[in-house]
Amino acid sequence: MSDAKVIVLTGGIGGAKLVLGLAHAITPSLIVSIVNTGDDVEHLGLCISPDIDTLLYTLSGKADTAKGWGRADETWTFMDTLRQIGGPDWFLLGDGDLAIHVLRTAWMKAGRSLSEVTADLASRFGLESRVLPMSDDPVATRLTTDEGELEFQRYFVERRCAPEVNAIDFAGAEASAPAPGVIEALTDPDAAAILIAPSNPFLSVDPILAVPGIRDALAAARAPVVAISPLVGGEAVKGPTAKLMREIGMEVSAQSIADHYCGLIDGILIDEGDRDDVSGVPQARCDTLMNDLDDRIRVAQAALSLARSLRS
Amino acid sequence: MSDAKVIVLTGGIGGAKLVLGLAHAITPSLIVSIVNTGDDVEHLGLCISPDIDTLLYTLSGKADTAKGWGRADETWTFMDTLRQIGGPDWFLLGDGDLAIHVLRTAWMKAGRSLSEVTADLASRFGLESRVLPMSDDPVATRLTTDEGELEFQRYFVERRCAPEVNAIDFAGAEASAPAPGVIEALTDPDAAAILIAPSNPFLSVDPILAVPGIRDALAAARAPVVAISPLVGGEAVKGPTAKLMREIGMEVSAQSIADHYCGLIDGILIDEGDRDDVSGVPQARCDTLMNDLDDRIRVAQAALSLARSLRS
Repeated sequence: MSDAKVIVLTGGIGGAKLVLGLAHAITPSLIVSIVNTGDDVEHLGLCISPDIDTLLYTLSGKADTAKGWGRADETWTFMDTLRQIGGPDWFLLGDGDLAIHVLRTAWMKAGRSLSEVTADLASRFGLESRVLPMSDDPVATRLTTDEGELEFQRYFVERRCAPEVNAIDFAGAEASAPAPGVIEALTDPDAAAILIAPSNPFLSVDPILAVPGIRDALAAARAPVVAISPLVGGEAVKGPTAKLMREIGMEVSAQSIADHYCGLIDGILIDEGDRDDVSGVPQARCDTLMNDLDDRIRVAQAALSLARSLRS
Repeated sequence: MSDAKVIVLTGGIGGAKLVLGLAHAITPSLIVSIVNTGDDVEHLGLCISPDIDTLLYTLSGKADTAKGWGRADETWTFMDTLRQIGGPDWFLLGDGDLAIHVLRTAWMKAGRSLSEVTADLASRFGLESRVLPMSDDPVATRLTTDEGELEFQRYFVERRCAPEVNAIDFAGAEASAPAPGVIEALTDPDAAAILIAPSNPFLSVDPILAVPGIRDALAAARAPVVAISPLVGGEAVKGPTAKLMREIGMEVSAQSIADHYCGLIDGILIDEGDRDDVSGVPQARCDTLMNDLDDRIRVAQAALSLARSLRS
């Protein structure tokens, strides 16, 4: 199994932590990350792909691990100046972070696809693992809330997930196609595992599944598909997962996560502190909280171990 | 004459210093700057107007006066990061400076003209004087050199004016129109003076004069037109003026400057240290070196005084 690929469907920081652990558990060049781009936003004319950037920063050791987003050793002169001249300041852009946005934007305006740009950036960040956007076509996660319809970043950043969510949709998904390499990775008969990262199922993984062809490829995959539950002791570690589950009338439990991925996954890794076992799909347990690198490696290894057990 | 406008044709830092002096010599709201945009460049997808920015920064007290360009208290995390990922680093973009470029670019891509954007920025910088680009149409200063054809910023920034210049042209100038307000300002019969700033005549003022209608309006102006020679003791204070004059076979003297503006100016202010008097046009002398604010006010007042003497 040492040359077999591991494919990860991932969103933001939680998923990036898992992929980092994985990159220390197996040969990094065997990892293919398929990244949510439903959070992508064009802000001030800049093409911003927050989940891709979080993954690039995390894997290259440039992430601000204390803050949980953005770059370490960041400065904020751009934002300070923008604020002084009355520019929009709800979306924070660090000075170093801007380099990736400006370069990506210039390349995309010159006609390169998001997956070409992402591969180029990953290479410039010195990464050996592959990073694929879910699609080269624009897909926009939008939330219907008690404050009206909100684009993802307006909900997540500007309103800090405060509005109550009634529905989520992925504008543009129907007309989108998987990025080059995505279906090939998911249908690789020799792959060791396909992991669904402990990212928000509704906001980070569902947009990926909404791209036509990806859900079917996952359901038909020869490789074992293992989800890592984002819940630890019945709550989300970070972000709005648990709040959102309650708002859409879902019990906040690993069982709900397993049911959400029903028909797609062959097993689920849940937290050792979770009260109830999951039924309907094989489970494994470990301490899924990922504070440091050792935690991340442990969770990655536990997920791979579950996948191995499902294959044999 | 206290309500009469003063119009200034200006380029980069030398011109900005004069306008700053003027803003301390008369009511700022009476000043109309017509700014060279032949240096403008689209770099990394960003619309950059170096001479307009230098003027905005200088007038609002945000310029780096020691360095002579850019903003005071600037940081460079963007450039450091861009360099780390192999982005183009020949054109320096400070973190704070980026705010103005990003905002201008977003506004222009949304369909606003350069003069609308410039007026908006000037207002956000708290300026009372008017700042007009010479044109809303793209005009690009290009130099034919011993190293081939170079765009202005490649010559000025990347090659630091080292190549020998054979010819200069202003691409797009023929099809350009003066920005709104430019001809009105130049033909204002009540204007106190029209000043040509001590900017590079060939690289900063000639592009303005190349916009159809501006040269004629200047030649026909009722207001006295006064040039301030950029030479001090027979040399340029800063930049390539003297080197360029030699390369195009011109004597480096105030007389050459006066001859260059022949038919357009009614008088010229030259440095008190210049050896020879100018013939063919009335002259005045003062110490034209502008190190501090007092110097700038002195030069502005000397130019206004010469203009007054020409009118009466």
